[in-house]
Amino acid sequence: MKDNHVAELFNVRSHNPSYFSVKDSITCQEELLDFCIPVNLYFPPNRMIDEIHRHLPEILRYYPDYAQTHAENIGAITGLPAENIVPANGSTEIITTLCQRISGPIVTSIPTFSRWTDLPEELHLELHTIERKREHDFRLCVSEIVKKCRNVSAGTLVISNPNNPTGAALTLDEIGELVTALPSLDALIVDESFIDFSDLQSAASLAIASSNLIVVKSLGKSLGWHGVRLGYAITNTARARELRNRLPFWNINGIAAHILKQLPNYNDEFRSSFQKVADDRIYMTTELSQIAGLHVFPSQANFLFVELAEGVAGRDLRNRLVSNHGVMIRECSNKLGSSERYLRLAVQKPFAVDRLIGALHVELDRPLTNMNISMCVS
Amino acid sequence: MKDNHVAELFNVRSHNPSYFSVKDSITCQEELLDFCIPVNLYFPPNRMIDEIHRHLPEILRYYPDYAQTHAENIGAITGLPAENIVPANGSTEIITTLCQRISGPIVTSIPTFSRWTDLPEELHLELHTIERKREHDFRLCVSEIVKKCRNVSAGTLVISNPNNPTGAALTLDEIGELVTALPSLDALIVDESFIDFSDLQSAASLAIASSNLIVVKSLGKSLGWHGVRLGYAITNTARARELRNRLPFWNINGIAAHILKQLPNYNDEFRSSFQKVADDRIYMTTELSQIAGLHVFPSQANFLFVELAEGVAGRDLRNRLVSNHGVMIRECSNKLGSSERYLRLAVQKPFAVDRLIGALHVELDRPLTNMNISMCVS
Repeated sequence: MKDNHVAELFNVRSHNPSYFSVKDSITCQEELLDFCIPVNLYFPPNRMIDEIHRHLPEILRYYPDYAQTHAENIGAITGLPAENIVPANGSTEIITTLCQRISGPIVTSIPTFSRWTDLPEELHLELHTIERKREHDFRLCVSEIVKKCRNVSAGTLVISNPNNPTGAALTLDEIGELVTALPSLDALIVDESFIDFSDLQSAASLAIASSNLIVVKSLGKSLGWHGVRLGYAITNTARARELRNRLPFWNINGIAAHILKQLPNYNDEFRSSFQKVADDRIYMTTELSQIAGLHVFPSQANFLFVELAEGVAGRDLRNRLVSNHGVMIRECSNKLGSSERYLRLAVQKPFAVDRLIGALHVELDRPLTNMNISMCVS
Repeated sequence: MKDNHVAELFNVRSHNPSYFSVKDSITCQEELLDFCIPVNLYFPPNRMIDEIHRHLPEILRYYPDYAQTHAENIGAITGLPAENIVPANGSTEIITTLCQRISGPIVTSIPTFSRWTDLPEELHLELHTIERKREHDFRLCVSEIVKKCRNVSAGTLVISNPNNPTGAALTLDEIGELVTALPSLDALIVDESFIDFSDLQSAASLAIASSNLIVVKSLGKSLGWHGVRLGYAITNTARARELRNRLPFWNINGIAAHILKQLPNYNDEFRSSFQKVADDRIYMTTELSQIAGLHVFPSQANFLFVELAEGVAGRDLRNRLVSNHGVMIRECSNKLGSSERYLRLAVQKPFAVDRLIGALHVELDRPLTNMNISMCVS
């Protein structure tokens, strides 16, 4: 087993290595289990996959529709007006485009989705951070956000809600308070990429009526298909038009476009899949909480934020879990405002959780200092 | 048959209506034949489609690889160094990104791919055009391009080669002459999206060594799958890095990424498919040339530029062909520097050409003034 090579694969600045690169690099006999990438494991249903298979050549043959059609289809799913919707090649296309024209100093909380901190840095923007505090279970107060924005004369505020990676959340009322308290912001961006897994209400309807609120949403996480590349923004009509004009034509690929058209036919399966993930989150929280030395924080998302006991080396643990057990986990040393003492674990099905728990028992009982165990032992 | 609705669908500024919107709108019993979208009809082979089907859930489940991996895979296909390759969500993503940072006055020839004229207009850039002349079969001279660029102190020159929609081309030597003659340009962009169908040599190797040459390439046309969204740029190392940094992470969807990885396994089928299209181009040129009143220009691409007899209404002809015969054609009234007297017809297989020829015989024998024929007559 090429342990050093596997460790190197994880040396990706701020993000995860690709599943495919790890899969190609390890020789562990068991199926590789992925706790890195939080994705909906209960969607899409088989009949939707079959339907896509039947139409695949035609779906891929032609140019996909224009943005207006996609916006109408997203409108049919969300109940929002098409004129307020900006369809995108994943939420990252929206994030990149927004950051390239961002106004004034930017405030965000950390830890957060790394594109929201890396992009401002790459673009040499003035970035101010609010640290989410362990003693508050990483929840933010409206008052501290407002204070920070005023102190630095922020032009843009970005909140990931529920927060990636901590799972902590602001309620819709609290987002409303922010909108009311911060009218001078050019943009108040709420990234709701994981909201479908929570019991939170979206701020989308607030965004439509607001001068500065922009809701960003990934669909890949909810659909269970990150590789499909699909997301959107919701904002007032004028800003939506302007944002849409900055994105390339045909930015939505044929499969993504087809899924948008078909999704209303799978509405029951889509909605119930989120409940199943919530059930798995309860199981996984309960099981992990029983391991001595692990602390699991409350989460509204399809991942759990987990603290290791003091002195436990998260990177070594990660390397051993993947090399010895075929279990990929995410430690947070490459996230601004976090460290290798924290893990973000995607919610998985109970059978996978049981394998993780077994692997954690084996590895946490050993001193975590090196990676010289090279056999698949589980 | 909703003729007016079909006619409205074609009122898309500069581009074609989507195949799906037309298909959903006509009631003609025969299979809808598409001469609008030039696509490789001999690729992908069935075994490649089968291979994608087998792996579809896994392909879509995870985040696709990072740009470096895609660049290496494009390098394996093209023989070019990865450091000079910028993978993109279709060539349109490259075009949009380049135009958003374009330098100085821009010169391009017309008619051309409409994104190259519409985007500068939308972005309020100073655009100068060189009209391709009918009496030269729409071929450009190096000297007239150089003269125009010098006269207007151009910062950027864009050449579509072979040209869309005329099919006329510059040789590699002529591109080399342009590079030598115009060192003061910030960017000399050659859009080679249709070059695979020609016997032209790519300017990619020139671009690697040049300070200002950028080759833009669509892969969707060559792969036969526009819906997959895949393209790239080739330029010197520093400019490639800078351009890559301006594009979103994960801009390549899972299927596109998978195709890039697999394409070297289908190299023979890929290469021979272009020869088959060239054979069909000869058949289609011969057949169309026999229709009185049509003039077909020499083409290096997988489409033909066709002139109607004076006074023939191209839009009416288009509407009648789709409504009465289920044959979609592209007339060029919405292309800067062209008119409805010119058609761009995608090269199709002989059986489809025969249906087009039959339909043209029927409709060109009738006065083309209105659209009140509402039955599918063929």
